[in-house]
Amino acid sequence: MSVAYLNGRYLPLAQARISPLDRGFLFADGIYEVAAVIDGKLVDSASHLARLERSTAAIGIALPLSLAQIEAAQQELVVRNGFPQGLVYLQITRGADATRDFIAPADLQPTLFMFMQDKPLLDTPAVRTGIAVATMADLRWARRDIKSVGLLAQAMAKQAAKDAGATEAWMVEDGFVTEGASSTAFIVTDEGIVTRPYSQSVLAGCTGAALTTLAQESGLAVIRRPFTVAEALTAQEAFITSASTLCLSVVRIDGQQIGDGAPGPVAMRLRQLYIDFARATAV
Amino acid sequence: MSVAYLNGRYLPLAQARISPLDRGFLFADGIYEVAAVIDGKLVDSASHLARLERSTAAIGIALPLSLAQIEAAQQELVVRNGFPQGLVYLQITRGADATRDFIAPADLQPTLFMFMQDKPLLDTPAVRTGIAVATMADLRWARRDIKSVGLLAQAMAKQAAKDAGATEAWMVEDGFVTEGASSTAFIVTDEGIVTRPYSQSVLAGCTGAALTTLAQESGLAVIRRPFTVAEALTAQEAFITSASTLCLSVVRIDGQQIGDGAPGPVAMRLRQLYIDFARATAV
Repeated sequence: MSVAYLNGRYLPLAQARISPLDRGFLFADGIYEVAAVIDGKLVDSASHLARLERSTAAIGIALPLSLAQIEAAQQELVVRNGFPQGLVYLQITRGADATRDFIAPADLQPTLFMFMQDKPLLDTPAVRTGIAVATMADLRWARRDIKSVGLLAQAMAKQAAKDAGATEAWMVEDGFVTEGASSTAFIVTDEGIVTRPYSQSVLAGCTGAALTTLAQESGLAVIRRPFTVAEALTAQEAFITSASTLCLSVVRIDGQQIGDGAPGPVAMRLRQLYIDFARATAV
Repeated sequence: MSVAYLNGRYLPLAQARISPLDRGFLFADGIYEVAAVIDGKLVDSASHLARLERSTAAIGIALPLSLAQIEAAQQELVVRNGFPQGLVYLQITRGADATRDFIAPADLQPTLFMFMQDKPLLDTPAVRTGIAVATMADLRWARRDIKSVGLLAQAMAKQAAKDAGATEAWMVEDGFVTEGASSTAFIVTDEGIVTRPYSQSVLAGCTGAALTTLAQESGLAVIRRPFTVAEALTAQEAFITSASTLCLSVVRIDGQQIGDGAPGPVAMRLRQLYIDFARATAV
């Protein structure tokens, strides 16, 4: 049984309890982050913590700890769990309030919850096979730059993708791919690596941001523009990035093969560059 | 301290606890309903339960009890609390799952949580003064017909309305009012009572549905079409409906007076018709 962190205490995950009056439960009034752990260390931690700070600020939740304290608690959680690879899930909500009013009282004490999942990240079957993606309408709210726990649309999209025989959903709005249900979407064309610009329409992916920097440093062009499903279907390669998948080739979209149907060289190279970066900078 | 219901048990609300692994907390993967209580009885209960069934079916959560059993539990909750007026809040989530996977395991046991709020519904200052509304962009997801607990956009809209000196937010999309952050929006024109048609863009309001039927029975025309903010500003009256407000006149929109700035006769008459209906049919 893994160890969780809840409001300053470490305890067995199965024993962690919160009030159902928590606004995270009643209103999805909370923010989350997922950080990869490799070699028992947090990957790209500063980037995740900066995004946590941006998201909580965007909805007016005051962090109950400093970012340095949060990182230290995450590190302690990793040590207590002892998993060399996995994911640290972190959620901050506005706290519990018996009035259940849409307007939150100003004096609520935020809830901070973390737990760690034991999960292989580096060597998984999907790295060798690539994954299939299914496209569908993007039903999400307008502030996707805020990493809120309001994830029902994403959960529905993932379930629909699974029902269609795919691993990830690529969400489409006004004819263009926004992003994956839990990942950033990329294609490889003659131009270089194409991915959607930052805006309120997409989450600023931490893994994607680091990976595009690595791509540019290695001489690959990164073009930030929207792309269509039709473009993706005829791309040389397609891939996704996220903290939990790092970088995975997309070899089928809506049942159609991309490239030669196997993980492509650009995605594989970027995955390795990212893993090298992750290991070198993990804390 | 009020009494809550959690998964078959009645207990003091302050003692109710759930796992933070509940998908209601992690993914907003849950549905809620709020029913008014007047004279110690549930108002328009069948309508709320039918909507609960529709919403849970839409996201594939199996009800842990029959609708009749849920209603009986709500009634028992009202008896145990002893509040003659108030609100019964009910939430069903897909349940707790330690994997935190977007794809929920099929065998999860749903969480059913209810509590009652002691709240005057019939005689409130807002009935006499009317309320102010602030308009703002509708940021919500595309499936507003599903009464999900993903309410962060609504909470943000309510807070922005409060900051603008208003009680309710009217959300606007493509130039038309969709609905209030937690209410249905109506205007009164020469045509009659105008409110937006049912679609995935709005929640099918239980109180609004009953009230429009009562309006038609009393000889008032009900026109289901979208209306703009400009139309609302020049309407004879404007009002909202919801389980917690029943029917309240809107006397200011974005600081501009509607009609003569006092609650109008149509809204006041409809409020009384609704209260009569509520008392006559409460269970």
